[in-house]
Amino acid sequence: MKLPETIVWTGKSIRLLDQTLLPGAVKYRECATLEEAAEAIRSLRVRGAPAIGVMAAYTLALAIRRDNPQSAAAFFDSMRRNVEAIDATRPTAHNLAWALRQCAAVAKRTGSDDPGTLSRAVIDEADRIAAEDRELCRRIGAAGSPLVPDGAGVLTHCNAGALATAGMGTALAPLYMAWEEGRRFHVYADETRPLWQGARLTAWELSQSGIPVSVLCDGAAASLIASGRIDLVIVGADRITASGDVANKIGTYGVALAAERHDVPFYVAAPRSTFDLSLSDGSSIPIEQRPPGEVTAPLGTPLAPAGVEGWNPAFDVTPASLVTRFITDAGVIAPPFYETIGTLFGGEATGGGEREGGNRPG
Amino acid sequence: MKLPETIVWTGKSIRLLDQTLLPGAVKYRECATLEEAAEAIRSLRVRGAPAIGVMAAYTLALAIRRDNPQSAAAFFDSMRRNVEAIDATRPTAHNLAWALRQCAAVAKRTGSDDPGTLSRAVIDEADRIAAEDRELCRRIGAAGSPLVPDGAGVLTHCNAGALATAGMGTALAPLYMAWEEGRRFHVYADETRPLWQGARLTAWELSQSGIPVSVLCDGAAASLIASGRIDLVIVGADRITASGDVANKIGTYGVALAAERHDVPFYVAAPRSTFDLSLSDGSSIPIEQRPPGEVTAPLGTPLAPAGVEGWNPAFDVTPASLVTRFITDAGVIAPPFYETIGTLFGGEATGGGEREGGNRPG
Repeated sequence: MKLPETIVWTGKSIRLLDQTLLPGAVKYRECATLEEAAEAIRSLRVRGAPAIGVMAAYTLALAIRRDNPQSAAAFFDSMRRNVEAIDATRPTAHNLAWALRQCAAVAKRTGSDDPGTLSRAVIDEADRIAAEDRELCRRIGAAGSPLVPDGAGVLTHCNAGALATAGMGTALAPLYMAWEEGRRFHVYADETRPLWQGARLTAWELSQSGIPVSVLCDGAAASLIASGRIDLVIVGADRITASGDVANKIGTYGVALAAERHDVPFYVAAPRSTFDLSLSDGSSIPIEQRPPGEVTAPLGTPLAPAGVEGWNPAFDVTPASLVTRFITDAGVIAPPFYETIGTLFGGEATGGGEREGGNRPG
Repeated sequence: MKLPETIVWTGKSIRLLDQTLLPGAVKYRECATLEEAAEAIRSLRVRGAPAIGVMAAYTLALAIRRDNPQSAAAFFDSMRRNVEAIDATRPTAHNLAWALRQCAAVAKRTGSDDPGTLSRAVIDEADRIAAEDRELCRRIGAAGSPLVPDGAGVLTHCNAGALATAGMGTALAPLYMAWEEGRRFHVYADETRPLWQGARLTAWELSQSGIPVSVLCDGAAASLIASGRIDLVIVGADRITASGDVANKIGTYGVALAAERHDVPFYVAAPRSTFDLSLSDGSSIPIEQRPPGEVTAPLGTPLAPAGVEGWNPAFDVTPASLVTRFITDAGVIAPPFYETIGTLFGGEATGGGEREGGNRPG
């Protein structure tokens, strides 16, 4: 199983797979300065909430290393400036801010006044965030793999794969795991307008691993499901409410409706960090509107006539009633979700920082 | 109400709106020879089944005129050769073959051996086909207009408008009529991957008429409907079975599922010629697969990695149970469709040539 290494810390730089060039070119980019790393985040060379979190943490480690502080005061000054600079690259990315806070907190917690020790703590925390992300993906994969039978047709939407995380992804993790266990299946990837993550990224990473994949237009998903070729649908999630309503990439809801109509299981794979128990249901999930030009001028080519507006929400909400199972790092849960989601968080506080950030492929 | 003139017979040439250039450029193209007209059909400068039928008839008239036959024998020889040449431009276009047959039959029926009279009969028949198409569109518009309330949000898919016919279209005809009657509304046009007819053509012709229109990605239609902005969905049809199952542009079925879920009326506008009573239900409708490159390399830009397959059906089938009303040139019909469709064809034979061809926007 050949999974792409989205982000690697070399010890003195960050090596990342430039996702803006995929699949035409597979090019790794070496970021040796704050400027280079910040540009990579801003320009979406790295994307997917978990991957962005990992990138932010390593970028902080890199920037402090370049500043080479000679005192604790210089270290904390460097950290403050760099956290601010990195934070500004994508102001609405939850995982980015969360990862930076984690690193800063860990450094403070050392109680050390040795700049070397402090810098080391930041690097260690970045390593820990990356390792935790890999482990969450692995657990989701292990939990979901038994749901992927030999000979299946599988439909997915957007990219919630290795490219969106430091590990094997969320929605794609059960597929990678099932494939490694020897089961064979065919994946259909919705192209995922407006940004084509399915055609560009999901198709690429699956075919890199030798998993057969076909791409289709988003509008063709319902008739693909009606044709009987699909045995399960599996998608990631951006946010899941206490009731089990799912915000995910625009287009997910329509796929869920078609799956229900044809009695095809609809699985949502996400780590517990994606559940936001402060939201009781989907109506309270804010939906970001993206630039209309992504619709009216695809690939930069103006298609709609001048003056015509584009309606371009980034996400839609799939009601819990359309979800067959959630596949999480703590196992697979079934309805009634209001109860079973509660049990996921049994002994824990529900508003913690770890869940605020965490693993959200975008 | 400014509707585009898709095809105009000037008396010695065909002037057509070059749809391959829309909406970037509004250019009329003058076809004065068989070769120019055939190229226009082949290159999809004119599209939509009814418009292609009209174009084929005028192309035949044009080609015979250029041959300038001096005897009945020369006329029929010219007609035979030109019918063959035009027929070959788009071998699967039903309306094209139908229109050519109509013209040939009418010429023969004159019983004349004057080449001028025979040529005139072909031109008259082409005029009649165009006028009939305009009249069918007008009747559909009149029947459907009362279903479009003031202040409505209207969703449509693909282009079943003036650009696909010689008249005001099928799905868009009730909208044009309602607008002329003074009611105001907002149209949302699915971009309609893979060929973008919604973004390019529907958005263009509506905005030309001053009707406000927004374009959205096909995957966003379900959440647009869920948002409460849509009061009715109206689409055209390629073929409708005796039971009321509807083959239409890929993506239609998903829109119908979302409309049903949110109790939004789903209207299908089509002339009686679109009903194919030889088919009992949707499972017997053949679905054409189009070139995979339309999916994997949108606008000619390869997006999916090499070796990844595209799944690209041209049409999908929406079951009759999801259709609220059919809007036809003989009025609006409600369920049970098996009965009400029968009444549309009450006194008529059901296998006639007129219905085999006829008005099918594509």
